[in-house]
Amino acid sequence: MPEEITTMDIEAVAFAINSHDKQAFLTAVEDVHHADLASIYEDINGDERTFFTAHIGPNKFSQILPELPDTLIESSLERFEPNQQKNILSALLDDDRADILQDVSSEARHRYLALLHPEDMETTCSLMRYEEDTAGGRMTTQAAKVTLGMTVKQALDVLRKDKNSTESLARIYLVDEEGRLKGKIRLRELAFSAWDVLVDELMEEVELSILATTDQEEAAQMFTKYDMTLLPVVDEYSRLLGVITHDDILEILEEESTEDIEKMSGIAGEQSEESYLNTRIITHFKRRFPWLLVLALLAISSCYVMLRFEHVLNSVYLLALYLPMVVAAGGNTGGQAATMVIRAMSLGELEAGSTVKVIIKELSLGLLLGVFLGGCIALVTFFILPVFDPPLAGITISAFALAASVALAAQITTSTLTGALLPLGARAINLDPAVVAAPAITTLVDISGMIIYFTATKAILSL
Amino acid sequence: MPEEITTMDIEAVAFAINSHDKQAFLTAVEDVHHADLASIYEDINGDERTFFTAHIGPNKFSQILPELPDTLIESSLERFEPNQQKNILSALLDDDRADILQDVSSEARHRYLALLHPEDMETTCSLMRYEEDTAGGRMTTQAAKVTLGMTVKQALDVLRKDKNSTESLARIYLVDEEGRLKGKIRLRELAFSAWDVLVDELMEEVELSILATTDQEEAAQMFTKYDMTLLPVVDEYSRLLGVITHDDILEILEEESTEDIEKMSGIAGEQSEESYLNTRIITHFKRRFPWLLVLALLAISSCYVMLRFEHVLNSVYLLALYLPMVVAAGGNTGGQAATMVIRAMSLGELEAGSTVKVIIKELSLGLLLGVFLGGCIALVTFFILPVFDPPLAGITISAFALAASVALAAQITTSTLTGALLPLGARAINLDPAVVAAPAITTLVDISGMIIYFTATKAILSL
Repeated sequence: MPEEITTMDIEAVAFAINSHDKQAFLTAVEDVHHADLASIYEDINGDERTFFTAHIGPNKFSQILPELPDTLIESSLERFEPNQQKNILSALLDDDRADILQDVSSEARHRYLALLHPEDMETTCSLMRYEEDTAGGRMTTQAAKVTLGMTVKQALDVLRKDKNSTESLARIYLVDEEGRLKGKIRLRELAFSAWDVLVDELMEEVELSILATTDQEEAAQMFTKYDMTLLPVVDEYSRLLGVITHDDILEILEEESTEDIEKMSGIAGEQSEESYLNTRIITHFKRRFPWLLVLALLAISSCYVMLRFEHVLNSVYLLALYLPMVVAAGGNTGGQAATMVIRAMSLGELEAGSTVKVIIKELSLGLLLGVFLGGCIALVTFFILPVFDPPLAGITISAFALAASVALAAQITTSTLTGALLPLGARAINLDPAVVAAPAITTLVDISGMIIYFTATKAILSL
Repeated sequence: MPEEITTMDIEAVAFAINSHDKQAFLTAVEDVHHADLASIYEDINGDERTFFTAHIGPNKFSQILPELPDTLIESSLERFEPNQQKNILSALLDDDRADILQDVSSEARHRYLALLHPEDMETTCSLMRYEEDTAGGRMTTQAAKVTLGMTVKQALDVLRKDKNSTESLARIYLVDEEGRLKGKIRLRELAFSAWDVLVDELMEEVELSILATTDQEEAAQMFTKYDMTLLPVVDEYSRLLGVITHDDILEILEEESTEDIEKMSGIAGEQSEESYLNTRIITHFKRRFPWLLVLALLAISSCYVMLRFEHVLNSVYLLALYLPMVVAAGGNTGGQAATMVIRAMSLGELEAGSTVKVIIKELSLGLLLGVFLGGCIALVTFFILPVFDPPLAGITISAFALAASVALAAQITTSTLTGALLPLGARAINLDPAVVAAPAITTLVDISGMIIYFTATKAILSL
């Protein structure tokens, strides 16, 4: 029976650390995945971390290091001696190593780079040239690569030598003498073919590759759309630089979704690499406060709009009752429209030319939602409001029901359209669509909602 | 140079369909990926679809079919003759075939099943037993599998025979005579080993497997956490049933993120399989209207709270000015807290026991946010409000600034805690956390906000 990773094993590690029992610790870590060991390391205190790094050994720690949040990278590496640091850094995959060196101070970066074998140092520096969120910043250079003109036997010999350093053998790439990507072979074809066959005969076409400078989100969209395993990364001369593997894509997708979700709720700044519970309160505070303040100030200024309609409110007090509902309904419908459009953009469904289609769609939808919601509210007002015996100030319930539902319908239609157009507008001027969505919509819709509400009811009730 | 998929190729297909040019169509589709052909099919009208299916041929169409939205599956299959349907269905991967048969009418399902080879029919029926959103519903049975006791040569022979039907050879699983999962081998180990070695010697431990009845989200979390390529799916006797591949995981992650995002914006019901633009307006309407109506009705009832404080509002009209801001700030901060907690739950960071930690964290954060935001608003009120010369009705600006900021701080603290606790509470009673979040918070916070605001200001201003 396969051995499962259980919470019991994880607790055994935590217990051994807690009781500083070296022997139990070394036995317990054997059964635990390095991703879980990283979570454990994140959760323990400084004293326990000293125990952890003193006994885990550089080899095992090199597996744990890439799973740690950015903020813990340097401090954890500094717990080791220089020659242990060298072992840890040398054992890393080259893309992980480049990522890690980008997350430490520049003083430490120089010190760590100097520890590396010259060849590793060169690869690492070349990877660090690419921004972290581009295809080049995500790729590993350890692609399985053979040259045109080799036999199956020669190819297998080359690959066998690289066996431990190439991250994935699921696709083997064929390059010419200049290193330009020419095609691919599957390992299964090599394994099942006669040894004297030329690799050229087994070559398949490479349909998709990506430029190293392209945004990582595009790589993720290609993976999802085309069900890929590996994506070759090339430079402008179509020379093969490396590959992006599917585990990188999982990380990208998770990051991008979290980013969208957080921005849409008005949470600012960079995502925390640490888990929710381990992120410090001050970090949470810094990400949540800015938008809260901006929105509160905007909300106050929107209140001054009410001052202008003071006489209307004073004459028909009933109107104040429905104002929050109209404003909130606008915010809700605008938020829905924005969500649909932002998600469609994230999934690559909306090209630049589809603005008109979106406008037609959301305008019809806004009208439909407005008419139905207005109708429901009119009925509720007509039949249920009298029960509460509100102060009517000379107008009839049916006139009020009509006025409120017309105002509501107008507000819903406007804010559906606003919600859909804001993200498109943001993209057009190169702003992140997600960040303008919820906060900007709330405010715009609040202000427009009040103006629409008062203008419509004033006209209908001839105040 | 590798051939890239370009929009030009895609446009060539669209143009050929439009001009009903069979020869151009057949040439153009050669260069286009089946995922793009599916998008094209989705976008064209019925007449053009007839042309498309008449000329594409069953072989090519079997690649396109799994990429089509659910709603187009049956109608597109019905454009083919029964023996073409048989070819299309037989050429599908078994997990795709099971998914497709779950999306057609029961009449069509029986007809299609009867076309299949008995063996395929049996596999398909066994896959259809699992819910679509479980590990079993997502797996393919086409795992590469060899039995303990074979030599490398025997294993390669078995695998060569299955070469075209096994979806992934990246991991080869070892089972005993009862089919129980015992370990795994890499194809590279087989390819690089002598032919008379026993596979048992090359076996590695399988650290992770999943029960067929487990929710798909758990499979996705395992993939992301442990950087996996394939996840073996077993039954309760640990017999190997199949594998989940990384492209299934990409789909699951995309679905689950979209679902979270949509529910948090109060969008109800099942996600549309079609793209945003191709989804019909009535479908959009049905998903957006229910929450809008419920929230509007709740908002109206919250307005009756205001009726109870009519005398306060009448005596200090200024209070009405700040009410929307206090309510909105509560909604914003509650939404932020809910987003953070829901996302942390989706990423598997919050176990059932962490409620107390969340309460402590969000309570401190709420206090911090409340005090700072209240302070900022007090300053703004004290220095800027007098400029607008508002009707003061006998109270001083500083008393009003104090009252408003205390009320705001109380509202922020309460709603931060409410926002964080609602998703946790929902999970505790087995509701989806995302669905209670935004809509429920808006309403709760609206009502509590008004009560807090009026109670606090009344007390401080001794009205």
